[in-house]
Amino acid sequence: MRNNPYTALETRFRRYSALSGAGAVLGWDQETMMPPGGAEARAEQMAVLDVLQHELLSDPAVEEELVEAEAAATALEPWQRANLREMRRVHTNETVAPAALVDARSRATSACVNAWREARKADDFSAVSDKLARVLELTREYGQIKAEKLGCGLYDALIDSYEPGGTMARIDPIFATLKAELPGLIDKILTAQAAGPRALEPEGPFPSERQKALGEKVMAALGFDFTHGRLDESAHPFTGGIPEDIRITTRYDEADFTRALMGVIHETGHALYEHGLPAEWRGQPVGSSRGMVMHESQSLLMEMQACRSPAFYRFLAPLAAEILGASGPALSPENLNRLGHRVSRGLIRVDADEVTYPLHVMLRYDLEKALLADDLKVKDLPGAWHEGMRNSLGVAPKDDRDGCLQDIHWYHGSFGYFPTYTLGALAAAQLYRAAKDALPELDSRIAGGDFAPLLSWLGENVHRKASSRLTNEILSEATGAELGADPFLAHLCERYL
Amino acid sequence: MRNNPYTALETRFRRYSALSGAGAVLGWDQETMMPPGGAEARAEQMAVLDVLQHELLSDPAVEEELVEAEAAATALEPWQRANLREMRRVHTNETVAPAALVDARSRATSACVNAWREARKADDFSAVSDKLARVLELTREYGQIKAEKLGCGLYDALIDSYEPGGTMARIDPIFATLKAELPGLIDKILTAQAAGPRALEPEGPFPSERQKALGEKVMAALGFDFTHGRLDESAHPFTGGIPEDIRITTRYDEADFTRALMGVIHETGHALYEHGLPAEWRGQPVGSSRGMVMHESQSLLMEMQACRSPAFYRFLAPLAAEILGASGPALSPENLNRLGHRVSRGLIRVDADEVTYPLHVMLRYDLEKALLADDLKVKDLPGAWHEGMRNSLGVAPKDDRDGCLQDIHWYHGSFGYFPTYTLGALAAAQLYRAAKDALPELDSRIAGGDFAPLLSWLGENVHRKASSRLTNEILSEATGAELGADPFLAHLCERYL
Repeated sequence: MRNNPYTALETRFRRYSALSGAGAVLGWDQETMMPPGGAEARAEQMAVLDVLQHELLSDPAVEEELVEAEAAATALEPWQRANLREMRRVHTNETVAPAALVDARSRATSACVNAWREARKADDFSAVSDKLARVLELTREYGQIKAEKLGCGLYDALIDSYEPGGTMARIDPIFATLKAELPGLIDKILTAQAAGPRALEPEGPFPSERQKALGEKVMAALGFDFTHGRLDESAHPFTGGIPEDIRITTRYDEADFTRALMGVIHETGHALYEHGLPAEWRGQPVGSSRGMVMHESQSLLMEMQACRSPAFYRFLAPLAAEILGASGPALSPENLNRLGHRVSRGLIRVDADEVTYPLHVMLRYDLEKALLADDLKVKDLPGAWHEGMRNSLGVAPKDDRDGCLQDIHWYHGSFGYFPTYTLGALAAAQLYRAAKDALPELDSRIAGGDFAPLLSWLGENVHRKASSRLTNEILSEATGAELGADPFLAHLCERYL
Repeated sequence: MRNNPYTALETRFRRYSALSGAGAVLGWDQETMMPPGGAEARAEQMAVLDVLQHELLSDPAVEEELVEAEAAATALEPWQRANLREMRRVHTNETVAPAALVDARSRATSACVNAWREARKADDFSAVSDKLARVLELTREYGQIKAEKLGCGLYDALIDSYEPGGTMARIDPIFATLKAELPGLIDKILTAQAAGPRALEPEGPFPSERQKALGEKVMAALGFDFTHGRLDESAHPFTGGIPEDIRITTRYDEADFTRALMGVIHETGHALYEHGLPAEWRGQPVGSSRGMVMHESQSLLMEMQACRSPAFYRFLAPLAAEILGASGPALSPENLNRLGHRVSRGLIRVDADEVTYPLHVMLRYDLEKALLADDLKVKDLPGAWHEGMRNSLGVAPKDDRDGCLQDIHWYHGSFGYFPTYTLGALAAAQLYRAAKDALPELDSRIAGGDFAPLLSWLGENVHRKASSRLTNEILSEATGAELGADPFLAHLCERYL
């Protein structure tokens, strides 16, 4: 008797997931534990895992099984139908581009990222511009193939890799609202801030081990389960591993404990999402996190909404004083709150506060659409960046290092990624608003270090839905509306004015 | 045009090696970093890698390519011919048993190891004896299939998995010499030891971080390259990772720094061998370490020959005093030497000194041969163990926990493994004798902390030969003789009498 095609697909995707989990642990090790001399062998191990994953899905049997299973989909349970839809999506992403293009892209981005590191150090955009042009060209080629397959536009096809269902048609009006509202809001906030008391800088040094102890204490309060994960150090903080074994990282600045702490809280938000994915769908596409918007919403909900709140600083202040062995007015809840709410017009996206951050993102969104449409030439990027910064933030970089060389994304071929940061911030505000409405005691619980009600609400309304629905469907069910800018703008007004 | 079959095999084995390297890093992580909740997912990841490795080699194309390449072997370079021979060996080991037997063995050993852990805790052999009998039965079945394929005896077929070329016909006369000589030698050594000064115990505690610093200092002196490896902690010390990225582990006893240190030196010996394998053969079977005898010879050469020597203790004493922040007569070179050379008739193999260790091994060798030949029933094992200890070491355990439940090997299905420990010790003595003859200044170099000449000699005579020759061929080229007991016995007489 022939195997049920849907069941065969489940088996195959479980293997696919185990390989990708193995790669995730190896990737974590690479950034945290691996000695430098292991790099070449590690790259080969990971490349072999990639090839095997690709071979698993590019086997012609998979397309046949998908078609058969789709034809008989009505006989499936609802979650299996959703799983089948996600299988199709993963399969498309894995197989849509011819092998030669995948290979050329992989080589071009790898060369471009290496050149970018040097170019950034030397503040010399011309040293990487040709390689970026090549990456852009291959990304466009890839996007066109995918757009044809999905029946959508080029840019939408690229967004789809990071945010299924994310389209320019949905993003543009939301960003238009932000563009209209933010500049005036920022003016008001800066005026109010200048009139208020200055935040005091806590006086370090704060030894890394103590910062780590504080971070782990806060992680535990947020609900992080250390039997299923750990906290380590890396040059660039990230959340890695797999849902049952989550590896988050941070880096410590001994002069300023708040940076690592807020970073740890951010990654913990990602981690709680992964760990909260439904165990019964493990290893299946439907059991994966929804996309970058939902993922970023979970990290920003913890970092920006729950933990930059006056309630959280009331919980944090005595804990920080005790674990860091510090005292004084700089560690008062009021001052920590003031420190966490400083707003400024800066040059660097990753250092930006939540109010100005969307302006950084929208500049990149406009520029990458123009690059892809060939309305902007790579050689003209530094000038366009300068002008864009001047127009939107009112400040402009003196060099390209603090300009168009600051982010790795484009050099790495990640076009269509940037908007997910801001869409995630909006989703965070919208979800948090709904959580507060559902949990009237939320603030006092947080002030007491009790995040259980929040985590339970997120588990039910976001985490356990995994990829069974699209982002906007999850948001609609949880908040009564599709993604919009209003809750975010209301949050800024409430917090800063 | 059809691919050259030998070249196709090289490509396939490179992928096989990358998968096994990925598994090695995941295995290291499991013992050192992984939170307990990751166990189930990790087991699945590693099982999938195993299956993929098996699928790579059980593909019928491999047998065809091997046959074709073997028919045209005269056209190959000598190292490629050796590689082809090793490919055949790996292929045989991977494919000789039918899948159902492999699966049954894997499940039976896994159940038996779990039962053994409990039985050992409870000192209740009867709680595991049925499971051990099942493992023994399946191991016999596996050994018989392999013996038929290789045209050898059952026990030789099992040894072959750990030590290619190791046979009872070679081992028996060597062990007969040890059995004849060791008991009298031990009597003499214990008499001499009782007449000499007592070793003083250094007074701790010695904090783990300082022990780690001392271990890393000694590793560096031995030639360990920290850009290609690291030292961590685990419940059971081991050497893991891959040649370019070696992960060694230890565990610290704060009351006694010598245990962890000697353990670190032992693992460093393994690590130097792996790292010294020829880079130009990476990823190919010929480029792997030769087998367990040669591997154990490299760890024991460092630990027992080079680093339990008076010369090494002259180097170690001031270093240990400085790094551990300790002083006094217990840390004098003479006292460290005395501590390192204590001999006693004990019950536990892993705690045994180098003089009595072979008696522990030979007991297990005799018992496992008898079990496999069905001359000894599993239910009679505790009694046979007791009697064997009484006869060979003159001491017998009061319970099975310190008797036949002390080692994991049989419960794990590893029959034929034990002799490699003692053969490794003999090889270490034989190689070290040859190194000393070739390097007349070796002792004074070691006393100065300079291991470069020794490492260079080992590199040329052992490490860079990898699997291009059999153990006895490597020993003959390096020492002028096949493996024997005389250099080891001479070493014991010289050191202890």
